[in-house]
Amino acid sequence: MCPIQDNNKCCSGPITKIINARLLKNHEIVEGSYLWFQNGKIIDPQSLFFDHLRDADEIIDAKGLLVVPGFIDTQINGAYGIDFADYEGSDEKIQADINKVAKGLLQYGCTSFCPTVVSSEPAVYKKVLPHLNARKGSATGGAEILGAHIEGPFISVEKKGAHKQSVFRTAENGIQDFDEAYGEELKKGNKAVSIMTLAPELNGVNDTIPDIVARGIKVALGHTSCRIAEAEQAVVKGATSITHLFNAMQAFHHRDPGLIGVLGAADLPIPESPKGHPEPSDTSPCRTKPDPRPFYGIICDGVHVHPNSVRMAYYSHPTGAVLVTDALSAMGLPAGTYSLGGRDVAVDHNGAAYVKGTSTLAGSTITIDECIRNFQKFTNCTVVEAVEAATLHPAELLGISDRKGTLNVGGDADFVFLDDFTGELKVDRVYVAGEQVKLN
Amino acid sequence: MCPIQDNNKCCSGPITKIINARLLKNHEIVEGSYLWFQNGKIIDPQSLFFDHLRDADEIIDAKGLLVVPGFIDTQINGAYGIDFADYEGSDEKIQADINKVAKGLLQYGCTSFCPTVVSSEPAVYKKVLPHLNARKGSATGGAEILGAHIEGPFISVEKKGAHKQSVFRTAENGIQDFDEAYGEELKKGNKAVSIMTLAPELNGVNDTIPDIVARGIKVALGHTSCRIAEAEQAVVKGATSITHLFNAMQAFHHRDPGLIGVLGAADLPIPESPKGHPEPSDTSPCRTKPDPRPFYGIICDGVHVHPNSVRMAYYSHPTGAVLVTDALSAMGLPAGTYSLGGRDVAVDHNGAAYVKGTSTLAGSTITIDECIRNFQKFTNCTVVEAVEAATLHPAELLGISDRKGTLNVGGDADFVFLDDFTGELKVDRVYVAGEQVKLN
Repeated sequence: MCPIQDNNKCCSGPITKIINARLLKNHEIVEGSYLWFQNGKIIDPQSLFFDHLRDADEIIDAKGLLVVPGFIDTQINGAYGIDFADYEGSDEKIQADINKVAKGLLQYGCTSFCPTVVSSEPAVYKKVLPHLNARKGSATGGAEILGAHIEGPFISVEKKGAHKQSVFRTAENGIQDFDEAYGEELKKGNKAVSIMTLAPELNGVNDTIPDIVARGIKVALGHTSCRIAEAEQAVVKGATSITHLFNAMQAFHHRDPGLIGVLGAADLPIPESPKGHPEPSDTSPCRTKPDPRPFYGIICDGVHVHPNSVRMAYYSHPTGAVLVTDALSAMGLPAGTYSLGGRDVAVDHNGAAYVKGTSTLAGSTITIDECIRNFQKFTNCTVVEAVEAATLHPAELLGISDRKGTLNVGGDADFVFLDDFTGELKVDRVYVAGEQVKLN
Repeated sequence: MCPIQDNNKCCSGPITKIINARLLKNHEIVEGSYLWFQNGKIIDPQSLFFDHLRDADEIIDAKGLLVVPGFIDTQINGAYGIDFADYEGSDEKIQADINKVAKGLLQYGCTSFCPTVVSSEPAVYKKVLPHLNARKGSATGGAEILGAHIEGPFISVEKKGAHKQSVFRTAENGIQDFDEAYGEELKKGNKAVSIMTLAPELNGVNDTIPDIVARGIKVALGHTSCRIAEAEQAVVKGATSITHLFNAMQAFHHRDPGLIGVLGAADLPIPESPKGHPEPSDTSPCRTKPDPRPFYGIICDGVHVHPNSVRMAYYSHPTGAVLVTDALSAMGLPAGTYSLGGRDVAVDHNGAAYVKGTSTLAGSTITIDECIRNFQKFTNCTVVEAVEAATLHPAELLGISDRKGTLNVGGDADFVFLDDFTGELKVDRVYVAGEQVKLN
């Protein structure tokens, strides 16, 4: 049997073997094991020897570094002065901008991402979404695009954050309203749109969740004033994620903990299939079956959420944690004024970004590798747990853990070499689709 | 060597042996083991056989029921129409009232408690505190008194709950102010006062914590607007508990989670001795040393705190959970108007108690056995974990786990037989100081 998925290419591409690595496999750091890849995929060396009588064409010495799956960012609005919701300029300009961000992200170990578009007019979606369709990554082309994350406009005025209220809408006509808002791209399902963030308490929205999920799109709850009962209903309807936990939602109140309180839910129905759901943990309602609680994105920049809050969330629901940057166009640039969905955002010298002239936070300027380091510090968790929150968990959320977020055979050859010898997790080397990235 | 602590009584009292019990020992349910007691203490059967050549005088057949330590309630304001802060009437009347409550509590498996006095004038403390000194329990005299819990008057106006604001004070003169407020009884330390609830942000209060702790009194933080930094400072100064977590404190805000956020603290200094601190859990900053985070009382009546909030707290810090009733004079009585520290409290038909004419909660009407059942339902925890939150944990908080809260040799013979055959934990039989309680 051929170890390589695409039979046309079987045995044709060069085979690479990584040695002297400590591999993150099955929730553990494994020493004394090798990692083989060919044609952008992780392959099975046993089958290679016995069925194909081949050995590696290239050997990479990892020199004892940690080798972990490439990082996945499911919420990023832009970087390097570019905002994915910006539709000014030609199609070529938009495409070039996206490529610039995709390439830049590789520097931080981010090998795939969901470009995020804040609440916008239909014309914006019509123009930008076709450029954000899923596409493969490469060392020269940049990180893989996993489909867009569309955040709003079906969100709450009360929890608008930096979003433009004038475009907000409700869904009295169900999925028709969604199609009207986003246009034809929505019908492509997760080739075009991987995640949609919505507020379940808005008219018609909760009842439309099954229709959105039926298209293969993951539903995330966010920018919402929903109470705990509404949040749990939305999960029962099919929502499987929470967008930037704690930010832009009803504050936690002990007598109605709102959306945050879903992390303490005990009575949600157990999912029939593990796909798209968190793995069981010691805090799961059933400790041997998939956890029915949603995943939750969390911004670990030390500005959006207090470290102790991160820790409480993590220990309430460890397998649901998904690190997101929620980075905006200012990422990778100095303090100044930038744009998010057409609104001015002021970034201070600590990298904190606010809607200009207000104290409303507006995305971050952090990178995903820094999120991992902060998360480990904030929660006191292990390296494995910290890395999984930016690899395995987002892949599970997106339902793509068969090819992303692990180092399992058959998966994409997206890796990060992490140097942990100094006590920090420093990105030392990055591969995307089996190609080595040139780091600055 | 004699197995009985009091040598004068050695071998003199009748020896009782409980058979056919499932015993809660060392965090587990142990079958096929016996429990021996004599003169109100749990004794070592091995030493009995070999050193004293004696067997049991009485055998009790537990018929397969769970046998667990007696429940401990560290916060209870009164019951049966009696409020511990009420100082009207003669000393005899006050004493009779306390005895009535102490006896009534045995019905629910509560074998020891900290009678709680809400914020009061100095004259009140002077009169009532001498009656609330630590004293042994008995089947006829009632549950053991572990010393009073004095809640206020060093608390925050903003988080006053049902407390009388006119008596509130601050502590510019340190411990002198406390002695002035409470009188001479405070100098007796934990014979008179086992726990004091205070707000650390008040002038002079935080700096006085070490002086209070030096008297053997446990400091609990509550009725407070303190922010996370102030809360952590108070813990460093020696506070080891939180009073009714979530209620009467700064609401949890993700960017400053206030006192609640101490449950997510990662950087508190590790205690040198385990005494008075929670045991390590998987969420402890150090998983092999005592947890530096405080214990937290929590009212599991389904009214004060949403079940999901209870669950999030529990999973953040499982070994710190302490179930309290915070019951008031209305406990054990029908709906109506009752008194708490001289204020009118209206109790509705669901047992919810409010400061009359307001929506401010004012204690509960729940019993400790019901708290255990609710806690298990709310958190989905095991029977062992639920029972320990009302036995081992409060004993550890009070620093008396050598004699309370476990079934270890040398401990007090306070037991509850729990019937779990119907899926509920029903109190079937109660022993206090080795004496069987007549249940109604």
